[in-house]
Amino acid sequence: MTEDTMQVACFGQPGSYSDQAMQAWFRGRSVEASYCDHFEEVTAAVAEGRARYGVVPIENSSTGGITEVYDLIRKYRCAVVGEKCIPIEHHLLGLPGAAIEDIHTVYSHPQGFAQSREFFRQHPAWEKIPYFSTSKSAERVAADGRKDEAAVAGRLAAELYGLQVLAENIQTNRSNFTRFFIIAPKMETDEKADRITLIIAVPHRPGALYHVLGYFFYGGMNMTHLESRPMEGHPFEYFFHIDVTGRLDDPSNAHTLRGLESMCSYFRILGNYASDRGGQP
Amino acid sequence: MTEDTMQVACFGQPGSYSDQAMQAWFRGRSVEASYCDHFEEVTAAVAEGRARYGVVPIENSSTGGITEVYDLIRKYRCAVVGEKCIPIEHHLLGLPGAAIEDIHTVYSHPQGFAQSREFFRQHPAWEKIPYFSTSKSAERVAADGRKDEAAVAGRLAAELYGLQVLAENIQTNRSNFTRFFIIAPKMETDEKADRITLIIAVPHRPGALYHVLGYFFYGGMNMTHLESRPMEGHPFEYFFHIDVTGRLDDPSNAHTLRGLESMCSYFRILGNYASDRGGQP
Repeated sequence: MTEDTMQVACFGQPGSYSDQAMQAWFRGRSVEASYCDHFEEVTAAVAEGRARYGVVPIENSSTGGITEVYDLIRKYRCAVVGEKCIPIEHHLLGLPGAAIEDIHTVYSHPQGFAQSREFFRQHPAWEKIPYFSTSKSAERVAADGRKDEAAVAGRLAAELYGLQVLAENIQTNRSNFTRFFIIAPKMETDEKADRITLIIAVPHRPGALYHVLGYFFYGGMNMTHLESRPMEGHPFEYFFHIDVTGRLDDPSNAHTLRGLESMCSYFRILGNYASDRGGQP
Repeated sequence: MTEDTMQVACFGQPGSYSDQAMQAWFRGRSVEASYCDHFEEVTAAVAEGRARYGVVPIENSSTGGITEVYDLIRKYRCAVVGEKCIPIEHHLLGLPGAAIEDIHTVYSHPQGFAQSREFFRQHPAWEKIPYFSTSKSAERVAADGRKDEAAVAGRLAAELYGLQVLAENIQTNRSNFTRFFIIAPKMETDEKADRITLIIAVPHRPGALYHVLGYFFYGGMNMTHLESRPMEGHPFEYFFHIDVTGRLDDPSNAHTLRGLESMCSYFRILGNYASDRGGQP
């Protein structure tokens, strides 16, 4: 490892969608990746300084926010330094020579099953086994060497583990993207930054969220996402994870955020980074 | 079955938390329950008239909204006729005579693992196998008859399947509730109704959600929950599932909702029912 090589903790395995996001975001830079089976290994590695960056999925355009990751980023106080949107194309992968009629058991990450729900409704007899990740499912099917097993994963995983595509593009929604966060221990921002991610909580009184959103509207900051997460130990109170357009070094945006902070019982800016639409219009 | 017996499709198994919610909500009424392994069986049974009511978990106070259920209720156009909050107390259950040192494999619903995350961090070597429901996990451990297997489930399941509590109250959050929806094909409301659940989508322009929430604030309807769910085929656009205080037969609330509807690209009222806090303050 040279001094310039960066340690990156990446969810999933070589060949996973997270791996694709990492390769795309760090293109041209020297990276030493450590792959993690669990989201928490990524956030812990970043928070504890064992990795300079981490790569985790945060939201899928069909199945929504990956709520455990929201909670881990909050818990480990990670910063967000970038995002990458990757088009998701799931295939049913089997051993070379296997046919779709041979299949009895399918491995995938639960999100892989959820995003391919319509396809699996046509195959109710198959046993669907939740597994660590789509790519790890592909690796397992290759290692088991059984013609009655299949995995739901991407084409990169098929190539990497020598599997054959038995059914192509099985995801329910043909316009399916996953958004990944590049996380770090501290914020990093540059001249391309145009999106701010923050977490707030508001006092338990009528209109509190309404008034907070007013700061964004009157401050000209467009909210692109709002995810509510429960506050542990305070049943039915919530954190709001919010994405808005803006720059922290813009005096108007900074003024807006200061006003907003005064209304909040919890307020933390996670990052200001360049938005990515993954080639969508 | 007499004419007065109601068919109810209930998620999970006898002894599950959903079963507890059903027993509590229908107390004193004659019910014939059919238990379902998958959320979609419940929503489909209700939508297709095979069950008069359905019982599904919608939100947990530690792990948040059960997003698949939100999406199914929207997709099957179910109405919400009631809610029930049940305190969740997870235990580690094993065979009679088993000790915690014997355990190698633990079955539970993924939510059972997520809600007991801290406990499982102390037992990293155990294999955690996701299963249909907490109660079905208990049933499986009883059926397998192996001392190295355990389940995460409630006390009712322990009693029903003859298992022993190996570790008590293992959920991370001691104040842990799950909120259940009672669903039906059509809305039903009565004089105790004080909460309205609706789904909206707003045009893709700055401040749209802010202006919508203004209707609630100025109309004196307090928003108690907001959950954003992706709109399939429209990457990074959202439905908002909203709970507010109010009554549909209150002229002021009705006026507020009419104004709000005029701002929305999608608007559907799911129900007006009596709120339940499960005995919380």
